Amino acid sequence: MKKSLVALAVLAASGAAMAQSSVQVYGLVDLVLHKDKNKAAALTSGGVNGSRWGLKGSEDLGGGLKANFLLEQGFNADDGTVSGAGFGRQAYFGLSGGFGEVKLGKIWTAYDDISGATDAAFNAIVLSPVWLIFQSQYGYTYNPNNGIYYATPSFGGFSGAVSTNLREGVANTRVSAFHVKYEGGPLFVALGYQDDEQKNEKYTRIGASYDLGVAKLLGTYGRAKNADVDEWSVGADVPVASNLVVSVGYARSKQDGMKAEQGWSLAAAYALSKRTTAYAGYFDANKAAVMGRAGAPDSRFGVGLKHTF
Amino acid sequence: MKKSLVALAVLAASGAAMAQSSVQVYGLVDLVLHKDKNKAAALTSGGVNGSRWGLKGSEDLGGGLKANFLLEQGFNADDGTVSGAGFGRQAYFGLSGGFGEVKLGKIWTAYDDISGATDAAFNAIVLSPVWLIFQSQYGYTYNPNNGIYYATPSFGGFSGAVSTNLREGVANTRVSAFHVKYEGGPLFVALGYQDDEQKNEKYTRIGASYDLGVAKLLGTYGRAKNADVDEWSVGADVPVASNLVVSVGYARSKQDGMKAEQGWSLAAAYALSKRTTAYAGYFDANKAAVMGRAGAPDSRFGVGLKHTF
Amino acid sequence: MKKSLVALAVLAASGAAMAQSSVQVYGLVDLVLHKDKNKAAALTSGGVNGSRWGLKGSEDLGGGLKANFLLEQGFNADDGTVSGAGFGRQAYFGLSGGFGEVKLGKIWTAYDDISGATDAAFNAIVLSPVWLIFQSQYGYTYNPNNGIYYATPSFGGFSGAVSTNLREGVANTRVSAFHVKYEGGPLFVALGYQDDEQKNEKYTRIGASYDLGVAKLLGTYGRAKNADVDEWSVGADVPVASNLVVSVGYARSKQDGMKAEQGWSLAAAYALSKRTTAYAGYFDANKAAVMGRAGAPDSRFGVGLKHTF
Repeated sequence: MKKSLVALAVLAASGAAMAQSSVQVYGLVDLVLHKDKNKAAALTSGGVNGSRWGLKGSEDLGGGLKANFLLEQGFNADDGTVSGAGFGRQAYFGLSGGFGEVKLGKIWTAYDDISGATDAAFNAIVLSPVWLIFQSQYGYTYNPNNGIYYATPSFGGFSGAVSTNLREGVANTRVSAFHVKYEGGPLFVALGYQDDEQKNEKYTRIGASYDLGVAKLLGTYGRAKNADVDEWSVGADVPVASNLVVSVGYARSKQDGMKAEQGWSLAAAYALSKRTTAYAGYFDANKAAVMGRAGAPDSRFGVGLKHTF
Repeated sequence: MKKSLVALAVLAASGAAMAQSSVQVYGLVDLVLHKDKNKAAALTSGGVNGSRWGLKGSEDLGGGLKANFLLEQGFNADDGTVSGAGFGRQAYFGLSGGFGEVKLGKIWTAYDDISGATDAAFNAIVLSPVWLIFQSQYGYTYNPNNGIYYATPSFGGFSGAVSTNLREGVANTRVSAFHVKYEGGPLFVALGYQDDEQKNEKYTRIGASYDLGVAKLLGTYGRAKNADVDEWSVGADVPVASNLVVSVGYARSKQDGMKAEQGWSLAAAYALSKRTTAYAGYFDANKAAVMGRAGAPDSRFGVGLKHTF
Repeated sequence: MKKSLVALAVLAASGAAMAQSSVQVYGLVDLVLHKDKNKAAALTSGGVNGSRWGLKGSEDLGGGLKANFLLEQGFNADDGTVSGAGFGRQAYFGLSGGFGEVKLGKIWTAYDDISGATDAAFNAIVLSPVWLIFQSQYGYTYNPNNGIYYATPSFGGFSGAVSTNLREGVANTRVSAFHVKYEGGPLFVALGYQDDEQKNEKYTRIGASYDLGVAKLLGTYGRAKNADVDEWSVGADVPVASNLVVSVGYARSKQDGMKAEQGWSLAAAYALSKRTTAYAGYFDANKAAVMGRAGAPDSRFGVGLKHTF
């Protein structure tokens, strides 16, 4: 009886807060100060991951079924502007359970899910080789509108996802994708494919990593079929101390009939806490004739701070 | 003394959360997959209610007086875009107490308060007869800027509200409205009126419902004076099981000198929880010559999911 | 042992809420109803302070070091629109500790920090003499993009801050500022300076206040060098009762070769609670030939309500 009273007191005292439990405010803020060759120093939002905030919730409907939603807006922490109109990153609603998860709305494609999973330099947007060299990293449609997405549960380490979207009568707007992956012990392998009408392109991505303990080896292969681009990347994440990882990587991209583009990165991430990480890195494009991605630098030094909430 | 200690411990432990108690993040996400006659299948946000998120708070000032605010933004869950600039649905601030409630800002009009209260098919935006047939349902100004709103307390089941807004020197922007209603036992009756300068129209709406237990009967009458439109709707909500309601309704709208428009709906709502409802419905416009509302379908089948947070 | 159990129960009960503790939703809503001479009555957002909402968080990294972020969007409570794109007021990320605080992003300048600190009439945007007469109050760049800001800790009451921003290759966009201030017992003194390339102006502000108990005396001097404007203001805050303050102030602004502009205000603030304040005031420009700030009234009466959450 007394316990109940205490519990009631607890509920009463935290009642206002409990009313909040159906939604979580979350986000990530990431700022990097970088100096690119022949350019002025710049403060840029999203050095490792794009800054974003959002609302999400998950309600247990019983029998293992859950209703889930997520609304996410990207923003630029250097000037406060938001990227895209409204919840321009993600806006979905769906159900999950023993059957896996179904999401409807604006959702990252199943190809996007695995596209940077085996990139060196923490897949940092402003520093990693895949982000700065791969022509297919910036090219594809990430999060089409009116999307439908299904992810399987894990079967002994194997899992997969498929995604598509409704055209709703507008031609050439279908973006269909899938991925399959295996995670077990030190090994991770993933294959992704996207048939992207909006970009008139078909993307393939294969990634693998193997954790030796002393280092995690990384390898990625990508192909954009219609542009006839082949690209690959190798790298390694080295845990130098319990809260310090150094990563090195190289990427090469070649369009048929064109000169190859290549670059390498060296980066370090220092965990100040579970939620806050300081990082620094250097990227060099190794005198590439043409850069794969518009705006990518010949060389860059950057130092940044990332925080999740 | 011990109780106090426990209470203090509670307050300490939930301190971070208690700091949140002055504001509540809330919202609703609603997605419907529908197939309209002669159109491609579409995923649309706001099948029953418009998707929205907001911030609201209420502070007890003592003596029964409260300060209340609410900020609400509409969004489209299918593509993440937001509807209107900023808190385009509602943004108000005011006081409530024994005298009723006063709100200032961008507020739904007193006419809007009761406009869909006696509509069949759960007053679902994409499925209900009043939403799809009534010319006055889409026509009026919902939430004028610089609004002033007063709602009375309930007197033995009777209550009312009035709303207007400041022109602030801009001609023809006044939107004044009122409603009176009675709720008691099985009976609900409401009358609303809006003099809408922005639409150059005067709207009248009368609604009534009576709950027989086995079914709740619904009736609505509407009039747009300047356009000389008369419209009415009847329907019934039938509680088939404890968490399943089936609703049927019919609506008819006639502008003087024009052919009448009419349509009917059949819909079901299945409560998966207090906060999550699955629904499905069919609407048929019965070969109307002209639809009351632009974009309304000849016929439509829809299935959706609605979740509040 | 029992205490621990209670504590655990508390943590369990408020678990969902505790998950929220890494971010705080906060804000301020302020609405004023005012009648300006020769104009229609108007409802305006931000009578005392601009209405805003935001997300902020602070994480203890150990050793006194903290990671801090803040994202703040201004809005208009009268029509729900937002001011600026996205987090147009502030968006910053940084670290604080024994060394002071460093912030990066979109940040109020060090000059802005102290610009209204010694203004009468609660520094109310729509009512105070400095806001309505000083040409330098509306003129300067408040929160440049790509900002870098450092504030010292307090040394025996003395503290200071410096701010600047990266040009990032865009000419004439540098806004550099500093302030130094002293707070001790009844005395407050502050000096601020801003070299504002965006406005092609150099601003100086000196403010002081002295609390006699029966009244707090206020004085402000401002100068815009390139426009050759000198301006000063005096005032007093009188605590009439424990929750009622009456404030009176006068301001005068003179551009070299032009007629002086001047005005005075009388205002009262009544605290309904710690978070909610009702206020009223009168401003008269004393037949100024030209007003310092576009849109400033010849005279104005206003009554408003302000609430923080």
